[in-house]
Amino acid sequence: MITLTSDFGSPYPAAMKGVIASRCDARMVDIAHDFPRQDVRTAAFWLRELLPYFPPAVHLVVVDPGVGTDRAAIAVRAGGHALVGPDNGVLLPAARRLAGRDADPDAFEVEYADPASVTFHGRDVFAPAAAEVHGVGVDRMGELSLLIPDADPEGLSFPDPDVGAAGASGEVLVVDDFGNAITNVPGEVLEGRFGGAVTVDGETVPVEPTYAAVGAGERLVTVGSHGNVELAVNRGRGDDAFDVDTGETVRIDW
Amino acid sequence: MITLTSDFGSPYPAAMKGVIASRCDARMVDIAHDFPRQDVRTAAFWLRELLPYFPPAVHLVVVDPGVGTDRAAIAVRAGGHALVGPDNGVLLPAARRLAGRDADPDAFEVEYADPASVTFHGRDVFAPAAAEVHGVGVDRMGELSLLIPDADPEGLSFPDPDVGAAGASGEVLVVDDFGNAITNVPGEVLEGRFGGAVTVDGETVPVEPTYAAVGAGERLVTVGSHGNVELAVNRGRGDDAFDVDTGETVRIDW
Amino acid sequence: MITLTSDFGSPYPAAMKGVIASRCDARMVDIAHDFPRQDVRTAAFWLRELLPYFPPAVHLVVVDPGVGTDRAAIAVRAGGHALVGPDNGVLLPAARRLAGRDADPDAFEVEYADPASVTFHGRDVFAPAAAEVHGVGVDRMGELSLLIPDADPEGLSFPDPDVGAAGASGEVLVVDDFGNAITNVPGEVLEGRFGGAVTVDGETVPVEPTYAAVGAGERLVTVGSHGNVELAVNRGRGDDAFDVDTGETVRIDW
Repeated sequence: MITLTSDFGSPYPAAMKGVIASRCDARMVDIAHDFPRQDVRTAAFWLRELLPYFPPAVHLVVVDPGVGTDRAAIAVRAGGHALVGPDNGVLLPAARRLAGRDADPDAFEVEYADPASVTFHGRDVFAPAAAEVHGVGVDRMGELSLLIPDADPEGLSFPDPDVGAAGASGEVLVVDDFGNAITNVPGEVLEGRFGGAVTVDGETVPVEPTYAAVGAGERLVTVGSHGNVELAVNRGRGDDAFDVDTGETVRIDW
Repeated sequence: MITLTSDFGSPYPAAMKGVIASRCDARMVDIAHDFPRQDVRTAAFWLRELLPYFPPAVHLVVVDPGVGTDRAAIAVRAGGHALVGPDNGVLLPAARRLAGRDADPDAFEVEYADPASVTFHGRDVFAPAAAEVHGVGVDRMGELSLLIPDADPEGLSFPDPDVGAAGASGEVLVVDDFGNAITNVPGEVLEGRFGGAVTVDGETVPVEPTYAAVGAGERLVTVGSHGNVELAVNRGRGDDAFDVDTGETVRIDW
Repeated sequence: MITLTSDFGSPYPAAMKGVIASRCDARMVDIAHDFPRQDVRTAAFWLRELLPYFPPAVHLVVVDPGVGTDRAAIAVRAGGHALVGPDNGVLLPAARRLAGRDADPDAFEVEYADPASVTFHGRDVFAPAAAEVHGVGVDRMGELSLLIPDADPEGLSFPDPDVGAAGASGEVLVVDDFGNAITNVPGEVLEGRFGGAVTVDGETVPVEPTYAAVGAGERLVTVGSHGNVELAVNRGRGDDAFDVDTGETVRIDW
């Protein structure tokens, strides 16, 4: 299986699918192609949350503000999965989670012609490399001549929250399609507080295990499906109701 | 084959695909993931129209305003198909059509842990159940220990139109992406009237078998691909031109 | 493999997928379903650019302003591929490119019932025909009784640019999702000019091989992944910055 992720919109992903289908018979599954343009952090967040639900697979990822610069192309192996994409950090959070706590992902540099000679790396560099990795198998990807071992890939870390006895200062990592503002504060801080309340930036908000525990249109603080604290509205948009956006700081006190 | 339907937008459907691919090798086909949020009726309408074109399959459906409440999860068997989703009526119109006129769908309750313990039922309840049904096969789904037979699922009916000798009062069931306003009035009422005209809410409108029978931008009344009377504009939006929306009443006189 | 292309948006493509899956076990790959409504030229452009990356396949294409008129349905064979769709020119540029320079595509008329009897040709005419072609194989599609050989399909040509010693007058063929304005001027005219500049409608603009060669938000003239001259902005929209849209004329001087 090869999964495909990009910020291309439509119809450029089809070119990558054609290239893959021309080279191997892998099943192809779309993760998403509508990630915010050139927003490496948002794509990295979602890949970290989504890829662990997949069986071992090759994951082709193209969110790449640096196309045409001298940033490298990389392939990373972790937990039986391979991830192929630009060396800008987008692969690393997912790879680390797939590798598990004590392992480091193997990283390879993907050899390709002069970057200035191609404008569509997804089609001309990454999709062919993903197909090659799928063809030989993740275990044996090190045998591919286009992969140079022991690369030192660009990292990407999400900010750590500041959790204290009285509360936590965190950051909104992403806002999902429903408008839920997903923070970097771990859900564990809300243990024992369900049915109660916290203050968010000074305003009292109920803490509930599910959206439907409050009335339609009402705000709540909950733990989302990713395990983090989320600012939400039942059947509405949390980002609007809490007036927060990606990258902004949130103060939660209990 | 497992088809997937939701109101999730992007990228949450990928989590369900990962769960399914981790459990079985079913082909996965998307019906749609952009149905109006938590609009059970619209999803139910489209499933009823679309699923009969599929070969026997497992259909995973997650349009679920009641996530986190005590609404049950159900699986329904009809005409060789299985439908898995929340017990809120969204599966029933399609199941009844797949079952045929004289049969009732078999309904099972899907056992799962305390609803309050999971916020993402699509990923954690419905996708695993759909994969289990696919694994054992629709005919033998009754053998699955997570399925409790003889459930009494929530129903959902579309309103009946009021058809008389002089005309019909109906309701707009959905507006499609093209802007066609699809009513609940059966297309048969227009038999013998093509090339003529009716009045819609008092205004005279031509009745034609195809959009292109009127000029670009002109209104028409026609029978859509679903067999119902449709208010349309050739190369334009019927909902705007007729000033109607989902749930509104329409009076057609001939 | 059967690829699917339409201007249907959602969820009508699912009906075509159901019809295909009911008739054959072809892999199905979406090219795009969000092409501009009834815009035959834009779809034709993208199919010409994208289909050559696919292995031999059956390509189902439904962008069809003439549904319900007497326009024919056709199937075209070129370079081991088959294309099935309305006879309005949408298939021809791709078919000619797939056929190669010296070959003409074989064209067949697809027999079907009275056009006025069906409103959804994608589901009721084109998808079944594509499944039949896939079933018998592209090489033997001429044996199908629903295909009448030696059709004379409607053509579609993109305008030729006017390239002279001092510059070129071209036309914007399409604007892609990124906002890049893709012209009909062949990229070769920029050979030897990278790192320099040209004037576009009288204003000086740098010529660069990649977007990232200019600062974020700055304009450039480049050669896109399709090989044509493109008016672009690094990390921005070229159509807005150059104030051009599909079908408009552009004058480039060097």
